[in-house]
Amino acid sequence: AASRLRLSGLCFLLQILNILLFAVFVRYSPEGSAGPCPPQLNCNRRNEDSAFQQPRFQGVHVQVLLSFGLLVVFLSRYGPGSAAISVLITAFAIQWAVLTQGVFHFFLNGKIYVGAQSMVSADFCTAAVLISTGAVLGRVSPVQMLLLALLEVTLCTLNEYILLSLMGVSDSGRSLTVHTFGAYFGLMVSRVLYQPHKDKRKREEQQDKGHQTDVFAVVGTIYLWIFWPSFTSTTTTVHHNDENWAVLNTYFSLVASTVSTFILSPVLHEESTPRMVQIQDATLAGMAMMGMAGEMLVTPFGALIAGFLVGLISLLGFRFFTPVLRSRLKIQDTCGVHNTHGLPGILGALLGTLLTLLATADTYGYRLELVFPLVAQGSQTVTDQAIIQLSALPLTLLLAGLGGCLTGAVLKIKVLRCSPDAQYKENDVFREVKLGNC
Amino acid sequence: AASRLRLSGLCFLLQILNILLFAVFVRYSPEGSAGPCPPQLNCNRRNEDSAFQQPRFQGVHVQVLLSFGLLVVFLSRYGPGSAAISVLITAFAIQWAVLTQGVFHFFLNGKIYVGAQSMVSADFCTAAVLISTGAVLGRVSPVQMLLLALLEVTLCTLNEYILLSLMGVSDSGRSLTVHTFGAYFGLMVSRVLYQPHKDKRKREEQQDKGHQTDVFAVVGTIYLWIFWPSFTSTTTTVHHNDENWAVLNTYFSLVASTVSTFILSPVLHEESTPRMVQIQDATLAGMAMMGMAGEMLVTPFGALIAGFLVGLISLLGFRFFTPVLRSRLKIQDTCGVHNTHGLPGILGALLGTLLTLLATADTYGYRLELVFPLVAQGSQTVTDQAIIQLSALPLTLLLAGLGGCLTGAVLKIKVLRCSPDAQYKENDVFREVKLGNC
Amino acid sequence: AASRLRLSGLCFLLQILNILLFAVFVRYSPEGSAGPCPPQLNCNRRNEDSAFQQPRFQGVHVQVLLSFGLLVVFLSRYGPGSAAISVLITAFAIQWAVLTQGVFHFFLNGKIYVGAQSMVSADFCTAAVLISTGAVLGRVSPVQMLLLALLEVTLCTLNEYILLSLMGVSDSGRSLTVHTFGAYFGLMVSRVLYQPHKDKRKREEQQDKGHQTDVFAVVGTIYLWIFWPSFTSTTTTVHHNDENWAVLNTYFSLVASTVSTFILSPVLHEESTPRMVQIQDATLAGMAMMGMAGEMLVTPFGALIAGFLVGLISLLGFRFFTPVLRSRLKIQDTCGVHNTHGLPGILGALLGTLLTLLATADTYGYRLELVFPLVAQGSQTVTDQAIIQLSALPLTLLLAGLGGCLTGAVLKIKVLRCSPDAQYKENDVFREVKLGNC
Repeated sequence: AASRLRLSGLCFLLQILNILLFAVFVRYSPEGSAGPCPPQLNCNRRNEDSAFQQPRFQGVHVQVLLSFGLLVVFLSRYGPGSAAISVLITAFAIQWAVLTQGVFHFFLNGKIYVGAQSMVSADFCTAAVLISTGAVLGRVSPVQMLLLALLEVTLCTLNEYILLSLMGVSDSGRSLTVHTFGAYFGLMVSRVLYQPHKDKRKREEQQDKGHQTDVFAVVGTIYLWIFWPSFTSTTTTVHHNDENWAVLNTYFSLVASTVSTFILSPVLHEESTPRMVQIQDATLAGMAMMGMAGEMLVTPFGALIAGFLVGLISLLGFRFFTPVLRSRLKIQDTCGVHNTHGLPGILGALLGTLLTLLATADTYGYRLELVFPLVAQGSQTVTDQAIIQLSALPLTLLLAGLGGCLTGAVLKIKVLRCSPDAQYKENDVFREVKLGNC
Repeated sequence: AASRLRLSGLCFLLQILNILLFAVFVRYSPEGSAGPCPPQLNCNRRNEDSAFQQPRFQGVHVQVLLSFGLLVVFLSRYGPGSAAISVLITAFAIQWAVLTQGVFHFFLNGKIYVGAQSMVSADFCTAAVLISTGAVLGRVSPVQMLLLALLEVTLCTLNEYILLSLMGVSDSGRSLTVHTFGAYFGLMVSRVLYQPHKDKRKREEQQDKGHQTDVFAVVGTIYLWIFWPSFTSTTTTVHHNDENWAVLNTYFSLVASTVSTFILSPVLHEESTPRMVQIQDATLAGMAMMGMAGEMLVTPFGALIAGFLVGLISLLGFRFFTPVLRSRLKIQDTCGVHNTHGLPGILGALLGTLLTLLATADTYGYRLELVFPLVAQGSQTVTDQAIIQLSALPLTLLLAGLGGCLTGAVLKIKVLRCSPDAQYKENDVFREVKLGNC
Repeated sequence: AASRLRLSGLCFLLQILNILLFAVFVRYSPEGSAGPCPPQLNCNRRNEDSAFQQPRFQGVHVQVLLSFGLLVVFLSRYGPGSAAISVLITAFAIQWAVLTQGVFHFFLNGKIYVGAQSMVSADFCTAAVLISTGAVLGRVSPVQMLLLALLEVTLCTLNEYILLSLMGVSDSGRSLTVHTFGAYFGLMVSRVLYQPHKDKRKREEQQDKGHQTDVFAVVGTIYLWIFWPSFTSTTTTVHHNDENWAVLNTYFSLVASTVSTFILSPVLHEESTPRMVQIQDATLAGMAMMGMAGEMLVTPFGALIAGFLVGLISLLGFRFFTPVLRSRLKIQDTCGVHNTHGLPGILGALLGTLLTLLATADTYGYRLELVFPLVAQGSQTVTDQAIIQLSALPLTLLLAGLGGCLTGAVLKIKVLRCSPDAQYKENDVFREVKLGNC
């Protein structure tokens, strides 16, 4: 009973806190006024004519899909039993992200002015949180998860602010700020919470693979194929153009990474065709790869090659790197986020850096203004920009690592851990998680 | 065999009737001509330039989601066994609604001119019908359901015409005309069809909760989170603006009502986390609440508070009010539509009235013209408008109540009831309904 | 092991081939330049102002749904076991279609210039391939399916080029080039691969109807209702108009064909309500019917009648024609594509021809320019255009038939067939297919 009411009480406190903070600080953005606009990617289009506003507004509706896309996808590994907790995390993280993002981006005269743009940013943060939970799911209680969301949203916003606003990094598909940050944050929390005896029990249960898993994997994969490329396009800086490279590059990348799963999987495993969960992982990897590089690639075959390679690397990571992670580094990665978000995110950032070096006004045309505004204005060379892009990677890893350590340490505080009895009860919620794939 | 062919024959008659009526009356709306436009909400934008037409056209595609959204949502309670009947009801109700709505809104020189707008209105009516079936499902035959759809579409259109066109009520998200009307219509039909001995059998079967239910509830909840806020935005009067309050308010409201489920559910029930069906109900309640008030709320924390409270009230309704409804008022509410649509709809209307009183040209800006056209033109004060908004509530309840009585009386006519043998056969169709949650 | 690696090796070869061909030939379409534009339907809007570009761009995102819509739909018959192979086919076919379509439509100075339009065309081809696999599924190995995709994409592109670009046929919803071509191509492959003893075994297994099938059928049907009418609208030539006939006609047609399933099914079968799979088939048939005629029908009741009749015909086809096809013509049609795509496609083409004869500048208004550009310019009479529309039907059937024969002959080459042992292993992949509905 105590454990039940602890979650209930924490939810109550956090929700009241959110309402109070909203009441004091948050107002709707008044139309006409441009508001305080930091040198962020999407800001320079704020005051343009209404023709450009429309696609952005439409985009928001697609945007809110993002975090739920991930939720659907993870269901194939978690099972519906954990869906309730994921929805709670999402519901809380969105409110909290609107507040923290607002402090950094939409703050003026002591008020946060929210609008469609705030919701988009909040969804990005929520996606990072959902990626992180993928690494620790099944080993933390709902109360711990809520606190993880509280801390991660704050740190993720800080990282995003430093990268996008202060440094001027071009990362419209969020290879770094969502995929890489979320994955390594979660892995570090997993490392701090490592418990040897639980690890063993887990390994045995992992053999048990339900059938329902496949159904969710089919739905998740189709969902990603349909919505993610179009999602990428709404966040890229090039909105109003018919020939949006980012959409097409993302699409080519995921197609190629899917085929490479069919190539490598029969070699590594005994089955003649890969399971749907593997195809889904390849799709995720192909998309994370195109986060930063999507709008920089100027030829379709580049996207095909990048997707092809990241599909192979992701599969090799599952086969060879995840066991090393577990045995040597003592990091359990419940749902393999390192292979589907972490590695592809890093590779995407490296590819983005390389492509930044190759960017010329000739090949980009008017896009240069949108993708690299500082380069187009002549205040920076592409080499400067490439150095900025590259330095964003270790910074993100550092922030994710430190943040993960800190969060893990907080979650280890005794009062947050469940009593043995309560833990048993709460494990029932995760029953399907354990029986599922992860 | 007779029962089988009775449904088949009724479908045949109704479809031929529809085709004949369409052939005689319905034509496509000729472009350029404005058509007969009653002082309805969406009409004043009919002749504007094509830039405004586009979002409305896009909106239609999202619109057709509405009724199916409900269908998906109800599947978590009905099970796939009843999905076929729901599709039939939808297919018939849409055609019939195009006809009845056309008579009221798009009638000129003896012809009904249909267009995208007609389909939108027809979908709204269909949604009300699907809500009503939620109250009686499992206790009426498909033949009875078809007749219920026939009568309810007609009355729902009448109610909508009186409220929106004659009285000038602002109810863009249809708190009253869809949620409240549909819920109380269905409850009244349920009351008239009350059969004591069936009620008992039902209660025993209710303990049996299938697992499939959870899968559908997950899908339904995600569907609502993704599509409903964007759906709200396409029906509101403010289309072309980036900072659409209705979307954001709806989103904040459902987020808060979800969290309040996690707060109250462990207190009321034994489980530490709510089941997905409960989260889905909270989402529905949070959305119904924002139907009328969505475009009137001028601060985000208002939406958070409203959603928070309606989430609590909906849960308390399930726990304490539904049993009273059943035992005292002899109203069986198979899928709890009173708590997810009825009560939140009424509360939404009351909140809308309150907000109308507080509306000023200062806080609304150019929106005032769109939300309260008569107030903006100076022909009405906000107090007048608030009285109109408030008086729409008892009127809707009255029409829904009378209509439900009438429909229930018609459905009780002996020839429509199944013979015991036929009833048994048809119950097979609903087998999963009984085994499911409701 | 050999069989496993054969699929893996073929995938590797094809993917490397695709990457090389992309590297040599494919570039992103430079903005501003109009590119080589054949007199194809969608080309005349290429150079228009950006206001028209936006809906087209939005359309692309919806477009990519098409092939996956079919995939979802077929899942109700195939089961998730075959989903992996379908995803592979899709991933390969899209790349290959971008290449072949590019050679015909976007070729200039030795380079293929791809853009959003290329992805749309590629998706159409992939849809035709998925329809064809519906006829042979469960009887061909993944390796054979990949080769089928390779050949069909090429021939489908050729057919599309002849019809739309050379002859000037108006077929925006692709009744002929996707539905009819895909269905008869698949049926002819099925005829060539006919194996008597397998047929028998299949018939026994067919009695076994899983429950999961129904869940997928519900999801598939809802998916089609939501997305297909809006999909049709994005491919029709009339983009920027609020009163798009094609969307409304498609919607009316599928509504009527759904009702006719409820009328005829209880007469033909013992069940009082049709199963969800039948409703899904009716929905598909109603949509294929409106492919060509959708933008030509000028009255809503025409769409109701057409949908009503095609729903009846499709059901009668399942009951009486499929057994004849199997026993007399020795054509096994695993998933009944003849009744859901073949026949409705032909009927749609005939209806389109009839409507072309009736087209006048009076009833079409400015649409005439978009639907029949040559007629509007006065260089053709409607009779000429009708003859062209009609002659496209036998041409498509001829090309599909010959192509299917050729493809079937190639698939029969011994090295492609599985050794008995391998076949057994690979059948495991299709286990659910056999237990499922087909």
